[in-house]
Amino acid sequence: MRCEVVAVGTELLLGQIVDTNSAYIGEQLALVGIDSYFQTKVGDNWGRIKECLELALSRSDAVIVCGGLGPTQDDITRDVIAEVMGVELRRDPELEARIRAMFGARGRFMPDNNLRQADVPEGAKVMDQMPGTAPGLICPVGDKVIYAVPGVPWEMREMITGSVIPDLKQRAGITGAIRSRVLRTWGQSESGLAEMLAGYHEDLERSGRCTLAFLASGVEGLKIRLTAKAATAEEAHAILDREVAVVADALGDLVFSLDDEPMEKVVLDLCESRGFSLAVAESMTGGLICERITSIPGSSRVFRGGIVSYASDVKSAVLGVPQGPVVSEDAAVAMARGVCELLKADVSVAVTGVAGPDEQEGQPVGTAWLATCVGGDAGAVQVRLPGDRERIRQFATISVLNLLRLRLAPRR
Amino acid sequence: MRCEVVAVGTELLLGQIVDTNSAYIGEQLALVGIDSYFQTKVGDNWGRIKECLELALSRSDAVIVCGGLGPTQDDITRDVIAEVMGVELRRDPELEARIRAMFGARGRFMPDNNLRQADVPEGAKVMDQMPGTAPGLICPVGDKVIYAVPGVPWEMREMITGSVIPDLKQRAGITGAIRSRVLRTWGQSESGLAEMLAGYHEDLERSGRCTLAFLASGVEGLKIRLTAKAATAEEAHAILDREVAVVADALGDLVFSLDDEPMEKVVLDLCESRGFSLAVAESMTGGLICERITSIPGSSRVFRGGIVSYASDVKSAVLGVPQGPVVSEDAAVAMARGVCELLKADVSVAVTGVAGPDEQEGQPVGTAWLATCVGGDAGAVQVRLPGDRERIRQFATISVLNLLRLRLAPRR
Repeated sequence: MRCEVVAVGTELLLGQIVDTNSAYIGEQLALVGIDSYFQTKVGDNWGRIKECLELALSRSDAVIVCGGLGPTQDDITRDVIAEVMGVELRRDPELEARIRAMFGARGRFMPDNNLRQADVPEGAKVMDQMPGTAPGLICPVGDKVIYAVPGVPWEMREMITGSVIPDLKQRAGITGAIRSRVLRTWGQSESGLAEMLAGYHEDLERSGRCTLAFLASGVEGLKIRLTAKAATAEEAHAILDREVAVVADALGDLVFSLDDEPMEKVVLDLCESRGFSLAVAESMTGGLICERITSIPGSSRVFRGGIVSYASDVKSAVLGVPQGPVVSEDAAVAMARGVCELLKADVSVAVTGVAGPDEQEGQPVGTAWLATCVGGDAGAVQVRLPGDRERIRQFATISVLNLLRLRLAPRR
Repeated sequence: MRCEVVAVGTELLLGQIVDTNSAYIGEQLALVGIDSYFQTKVGDNWGRIKECLELALSRSDAVIVCGGLGPTQDDITRDVIAEVMGVELRRDPELEARIRAMFGARGRFMPDNNLRQADVPEGAKVMDQMPGTAPGLICPVGDKVIYAVPGVPWEMREMITGSVIPDLKQRAGITGAIRSRVLRTWGQSESGLAEMLAGYHEDLERSGRCTLAFLASGVEGLKIRLTAKAATAEEAHAILDREVAVVADALGDLVFSLDDEPMEKVVLDLCESRGFSLAVAESMTGGLICERITSIPGSSRVFRGGIVSYASDVKSAVLGVPQGPVVSEDAAVAMARGVCELLKADVSVAVTGVAGPDEQEGQPVGTAWLATCVGGDAGAVQVRLPGDRERIRQFATISVLNLLRLRLAPRR
């Protein structure tokens, strides 16, 4: 079974919007084992959209078209599909009523143009999911099929997982279940991890009981994805439970999540399970540590707050950092202790360093002191972080959270 | 002149990496007036890469191939191009020496595989820019051309602006200069801006002296791009200076930058020009305001620091917020005043509100109080922000910075 993706929109070609939809769709197709060999971007142009659809149908079994289903004159995807199918568009009364009701509910005036969204190629089926005013369409073309979904990412995603993938699986006769689990690691390179898992990986490939892939994720560390295929979802999950445990055991402390959670979520959960409240004191990272922690819903159960002590005299006045260099072990430790006292927190992390572009106190860009404090016991380590200002700040954030994780995690 | 883009890499089709390169290249092509009608992603497969290149050459004058120039066996772009050109690969001694020298300089062992990167199709020219070990190639095919650039974004960008665009301009006989300026606005919808500029826009289109486009940028507001073409860059800049002034005049306070700067940069510059130091007190935004401010190099000249007062008792203990509801005008104003006093800053912004997922103090998700304080004079406004947790936090951040901007900006 082969399925191509065609993303429609002149703004995609002009680079005004990055096409993230195709990547999402490609990932969903890969997870169920459907091949996607070509993905194309094309503008809002009748002839060229038609050319793309016909080419895709000639070399694949299915095509997912994304975008061009809106209410404006630019939005011609449904018209072109009707031409490719050799049928007319018909206004669907049920869709028309639904679109009118949506506008009514929001108390908004509905331009007549919007009813174009109720036009459906004859023989096409409307998808059940419809989070916006653009319906998704399943359009048979001989024994092949075109799926049309809107370009709005959350609308598209609901339709891909709810209608397109199940329909494709049925067509392809994929009866089993394919499931994945992602482990996240910090502190080892891809080749290092590969070496640690070499024997296990070979054994997996020989037995075929699941597949293993390394996914580089930049400042978020390296992910390891295990994918299992079985008759039922329960069986696939059972296989993954076993294999995830083996990998976690082999990698020990390098693994910080068995379920694709970000570092800040893991740290919050560790604090909560031990009944600890958390505070942050940050200088070089300038609010990034707090921001990442509070991006997690429910962080208020653990997180007391943070001090962004950017100016040196704020460090001394608010956090009690002693006089002297601020890019130092003493300063980092004092920040971590001071913020626990000021905000009445049980544990804390603190960062002071040089994010650049200029060096500071004679220390080169990338120098940082990362401190943690647990129950009054504070310590710091020095690191040299690579990259530009943004990457240095990101690396410092995940690195210091990882240090706190290692102090709080039960030893395996 | 038409130019297609082909992005090579199985990881792109699998959605492990989002193809941002094509969007960048599409934007660069658009800026010099070269049409790009199709952009394709294809995996590391000889036959399918060849199919893409031949199709692109059949309907366009030029093709930019991005990716597949690395040292591993997967990297076959240069081999396929040679086949399409009908020539052999030849090892370039100068390139070989350069690659050996790069490894030597870093004190790293060079696997022999890396010398594949010195193989060049006969008749192809190596681009001058070479920030990594993958050379960029200009490969003539009859009167058409294939450009091969690496998939690493910073290497790709250097070659696109340094070699590909100048070569394309020469081939297309584009002698003039095309330049753009981007104004940023906050506080008005696209249709609202379009209405305010309707007469001017029509006049522009009639006269053809420059073009105007609205670029939606989500939580960053709406951008307006003006593009002018002239015999020289100086003339194009002179045209833009005039037109940007007209648009800025028509839109007044809605425009926050005449040069595509983010809101936090504009606020920092306003503070600096008036000799004010800046502090932040934030609750719902959880560090995001501080993070955005400190993402700007040089922010330390203005920014004192911030208090992320997440827990309610931190608001009262550290910032002196009075007892009572914390999602309130009184709390926001007290936070803005309190942080100015604590951190000895001249001006401040403060945010308290409900980011979700749950309501708080009986207030619905999206409710926020945004406060500013200038020289001890503090005030707050209430807003209802749309979207999910992340969007609410982003909207609150740019909204409160915009309020401070309006208080600090000289009246036009």
